[in-house]
Amino acid sequence: MANTHGRGLVSEKNPSAGVIAHLRNMARTTEFDVADCIALLARTPAALDALLRGLPDTWIRSNEGRTAGSEPTWSPFDIVGHLVAGERHDWMPRARIILDQGEARAFDPFDRLAQNRESQGKSFDQLLDEFARLRQENLAALRSLNLQPEDLSRRGKHPSLGVVTLSQLLATWAVHDLTHLHQLSRVMAHQYRDAVGPWNVYLGVLRCAGHSA
Amino acid sequence: MANTHGRGLVSEKNPSAGVIAHLRNMARTTEFDVADCIALLARTPAALDALLRGLPDTWIRSNEGRTAGSEPTWSPFDIVGHLVAGERHDWMPRARIILDQGEARAFDPFDRLAQNRESQGKSFDQLLDEFARLRQENLAALRSLNLQPEDLSRRGKHPSLGVVTLSQLLATWAVHDLTHLHQLSRVMAHQYRDAVGPWNVYLGVLRCAGHSA
Repeated sequence: MANTHGRGLVSEKNPSAGVIAHLRNMARTTEFDVADCIALLARTPAALDALLRGLPDTWIRSNEGRTAGSEPTWSPFDIVGHLVAGERHDWMPRARIILDQGEARAFDPFDRLAQNRESQGKSFDQLLDEFARLRQENLAALRSLNLQPEDLSRRGKHPSLGVVTLSQLLATWAVHDLTHLHQLSRVMAHQYRDAVGPWNVYLGVLRCAGHSA
Repeated sequence: MANTHGRGLVSEKNPSAGVIAHLRNMARTTEFDVADCIALLARTPAALDALLRGLPDTWIRSNEGRTAGSEPTWSPFDIVGHLVAGERHDWMPRARIILDQGEARAFDPFDRLAQNRESQGKSFDQLLDEFARLRQENLAALRSLNLQPEDLSRRGKHPSLGVVTLSQLLATWAVHDLTHLHQLSRVMAHQYRDAVGPWNVYLGVLRCAGHSA
């Protein structure tokens, strides 16, 4: 059933009512709301803590063993280290640049492999603690900005993507959490790829090939 | 970079050392261990609770609005209801059938849409509570079986897949948690598909089309 999610229907010559409903549905996303976004951002550290703290290294330190050129895929240890780096270098520093300097100054590029240096010598529990503390501090700082609706459309300059808005940055912060939760579940599921035996046909996560740009 | 994860390398005519390392890595999964499996199963309810409890309905009740034939994709509310149904009807009942009757009696088919009936009239907090309670009870029952290594290879009969083993059932229970965490992160990310603006190119979860069989 390659067409499970109705993909490809757009090329139908005679769109049925079902197709029209499908196209209408595809466009239905949620309008950005700062409070809703913060509600999610505030929960991620505790969710990862509850899922991962105390698990044996076989879950925490294993990746999928695949190579992208010379780059291995990430383990849960790598992923949490990456989220820590984002709290330090990416989200709130960029929000401040937008509010203070607008498009006059492009964001500093974000090193998506910073964790390879910055996690060195740290335990996994330390990374979980650090993520929780930094996220809490950053959300306190965000709330203290007391953003008004008109602030959300203020513009900044991304070094590769060009003009972006503050609301796009904040929405991306939340979806970045979710994209790494998505990656984490895939990497962990990989460890039991063989162990599940014939059930692998029912377990969609085992067919996810990742979606890195 | 379509080849991010080294897919397609197997068709190279002259496999390099890199390709050989890649193929070796692809096979590296983790050997099944009951204690490691239980460690993960025990954490899922608290992880979902920390991530989801108290979030506004815009996160909890929204799906991706896509249709697979007539079946909409699932919201976080649907997903947690499905996990509750699995605790009631699927995992431990099947383990008991394997131990008590082996291949003599096929498992009852599992209704993957049972939540559409069974979640009716319940609040999301009730579903989270129910999932935590049932999972705890099921893991207590599993531990009380005091499984020995030779028990793990005991065989049962799946109504569609044929012969399966107890260890495959238990590994599938854990990967089933992960496949729904994977789905949940995708469905939630979808809500901000438009809100992230140009950043969508960096957010792999927004390119996941689901992987249902």
